[in-house]
Amino acid sequence: MFIVQKFGGSSVADAEKMRRVAGVIADTYAEGHDVVVVLSAQGDTTDDLIEKAHEINPRPSKREMDVLLSTGEQQSVALMAMTLEAMGLPVVSITGWQVGIETNANYGSARIMRISSERIRRELDKRRIVVVAGFQGIDKNDDITTLGRGGSDTTAVALAAVLHADKCQIYTDVEGVYTADPRKVQGARKLKEITYDEMLELASLGAQVLHNRSVEMAKRYGVIIEVLSSYVRKPGTKVKEVVKKVEEMKISGIAKDNNVARIVVIGVPDEPGMAFRVFNTMARAKINVDIILQSYGRENTNDISFTVPLADAEAAEAVLDEVRESIGFDHINVDTNVSKVSIVGAGMMSASGIAALMFEALYDAKINIQMISTSEIKVSVLIEKNHADLAVQAIHNKFFG
Amino acid sequence: MFIVQKFGGSSVADAEKMRRVAGVIADTYAEGHDVVVVLSAQGDTTDDLIEKAHEINPRPSKREMDVLLSTGEQQSVALMAMTLEAMGLPVVSITGWQVGIETNANYGSARIMRISSERIRRELDKRRIVVVAGFQGIDKNDDITTLGRGGSDTTAVALAAVLHADKCQIYTDVEGVYTADPRKVQGARKLKEITYDEMLELASLGAQVLHNRSVEMAKRYGVIIEVLSSYVRKPGTKVKEVVKKVEEMKISGIAKDNNVARIVVIGVPDEPGMAFRVFNTMARAKINVDIILQSYGRENTNDISFTVPLADAEAAEAVLDEVRESIGFDHINVDTNVSKVSIVGAGMMSASGIAALMFEALYDAKINIQMISTSEIKVSVLIEKNHADLAVQAIHNKFFG
Repeated sequence: MFIVQKFGGSSVADAEKMRRVAGVIADTYAEGHDVVVVLSAQGDTTDDLIEKAHEINPRPSKREMDVLLSTGEQQSVALMAMTLEAMGLPVVSITGWQVGIETNANYGSARIMRISSERIRRELDKRRIVVVAGFQGIDKNDDITTLGRGGSDTTAVALAAVLHADKCQIYTDVEGVYTADPRKVQGARKLKEITYDEMLELASLGAQVLHNRSVEMAKRYGVIIEVLSSYVRKPGTKVKEVVKKVEEMKISGIAKDNNVARIVVIGVPDEPGMAFRVFNTMARAKINVDIILQSYGRENTNDISFTVPLADAEAAEAVLDEVRESIGFDHINVDTNVSKVSIVGAGMMSASGIAALMFEALYDAKINIQMISTSEIKVSVLIEKNHADLAVQAIHNKFFG
Repeated sequence: MFIVQKFGGSSVADAEKMRRVAGVIADTYAEGHDVVVVLSAQGDTTDDLIEKAHEINPRPSKREMDVLLSTGEQQSVALMAMTLEAMGLPVVSITGWQVGIETNANYGSARIMRISSERIRRELDKRRIVVVAGFQGIDKNDDITTLGRGGSDTTAVALAAVLHADKCQIYTDVEGVYTADPRKVQGARKLKEITYDEMLELASLGAQVLHNRSVEMAKRYGVIIEVLSSYVRKPGTKVKEVVKKVEEMKISGIAKDNNVARIVVIGVPDEPGMAFRVFNTMARAKINVDIILQSYGRENTNDISFTVPLADAEAAEAVLDEVRESIGFDHINVDTNVSKVSIVGAGMMSASGIAALMFEALYDAKINIQMISTSEIKVSVLIEKNHADLAVQAIHNKFFG
């Protein structure tokens, strides 16, 4: 088999952890597989470098920031290669530019345009373990770029796609994808398999296992991802297109997202184009809008409610305030004391009454629902923040209890 | 003018020092010059990285070590670019591979084979300050190499040569090249100019201002080097082919080298080829031999004395011991309590009695001479180590007093 393995920064934070990860890699190699390893920067390296930069310049250019930050992954791969060398294994480290990971010039959050497979193939043909620096690439001018949040996951999936690897293992500090956060929800179970779409919904809903970008890419190229633990040698969760439901589970998981705020635009004139103008204002400010609810107000006006990421709440209020007179609404109400709780499952499409079961669980727990949003594989509700954990547990009990 | 400026690791060790150096660069740029800056890794970065590597693997491959170490210079150039950005200056950082500094594959001490000037020219045409990572290059396979000791000086001189810069300024923690170590010798004077050959002799004799490799390269390509201080804004010392002797100085400088040991091979048979066999043994062990003296012993045997770097003394003794029987000498004597004191000066060639003056100074100071070696521009003597400082002062007084 041909396996791509990705280890995050906390898994390679020091010499001891490096050795543990090297053990996982060595075992995979010893089984006769071709192994490509993708690493992030060690522990707090990236944060330390950002701090160092800001000490010198509070607003450094993104180009120079990428030159600086990409050294973190380069150090990781060199040190991991040395660790594997010490175990007597044939290994070579390579950086993003050495692989030929071409991106656009969007420094700090570049997108991969093209990957050359030549160098990695050449090294694999020599039966070497290839350790690739994640998170980084180069643009057309040979300038260094970084891929932004979740960058190393993206590197791993992209390499697996280009090299036609059999699977892409993402090692993390959890054992896989769970029906709910196992640290908070009693009875949370690890899933054997999950579809890309379910994973995408769970990730965007606050289950911080995989970054959406890498899941989207895996879906596009049909890369099978396996999420598993760097510390415990157990099978993890496979993310793939078609899932055999061994258990008759109606949903795959429950997620909670506290990083959300509700904005209500009150007293919008009941005329065509008003909703467009409100949401166009958000779009121009590059603020993502999620659940939307339009309700009838009084005296020929409507109230438009929607949720935005918590970090964008202030900005959203400010840009809306600027168009208040031209749109002609009355005032804005911002509520940051909310949480979004969602159930996700591809099985929802064919089963009826799933949403009703969720609402029943919330009703039994005496939790008031403020807003509801549904998609083919998801039902989300907005509730008061301090009820969120209780809500997740209640829903989990209802579906899995 | 087109100026290459090189700053060492201690000059860029922290944010404050970075800002001071940025001030020097900014002033040069403001005078209308084209400026290419070459930097070493910050302060102890390289040592810290080596320690980190050895914690993981006591004998890492040189290839991976170069991948690791080259990140130090990359961080330096990014941070310096950010510092100059903060001052509102147009600047771009580039790494060794981005410049196109091609070396052989001799990891850890690679030699530069070819430099592409295209990228730097393109940046200079945009009136940008170009900050280049010193010490690093890439081999034919796009693998990262480092140039070894004095590597950043070599990068600076090589760039000055390829780009036909008007001069290459090497900023250091001393104000220039002195007639003797100013911290130890009373009356030591800063030289305005010195020839490449004099500089080479002084450098190899322990005056640690410039690394020989960079001076040799400067001589070959006629690059004018200026050694000057990062801290004091004063003219330094120019290293160039033809020197105007403003003062009628017979010698340029006096140097002391404590990193030396004397080895005496006693009782070598008085037959042809014996000296060859002794020095061939040293050559095979890659030990540099300096002053050589062959004296007649008794009973058809000779004693062969020579000096080696102090660090190689034990190895020299060991490899000689292995050939003792086949060569047929009696025994070996190793003396590490010695120092080499030298006077250097291109003027020596045309002036007579220079060596005699030196010997007179030592005689007056009652210092015994163990060995003597002369070249066209140098006279070296080997003396007891604890007399070395006294010897340098006595000779300095004789020539410059």
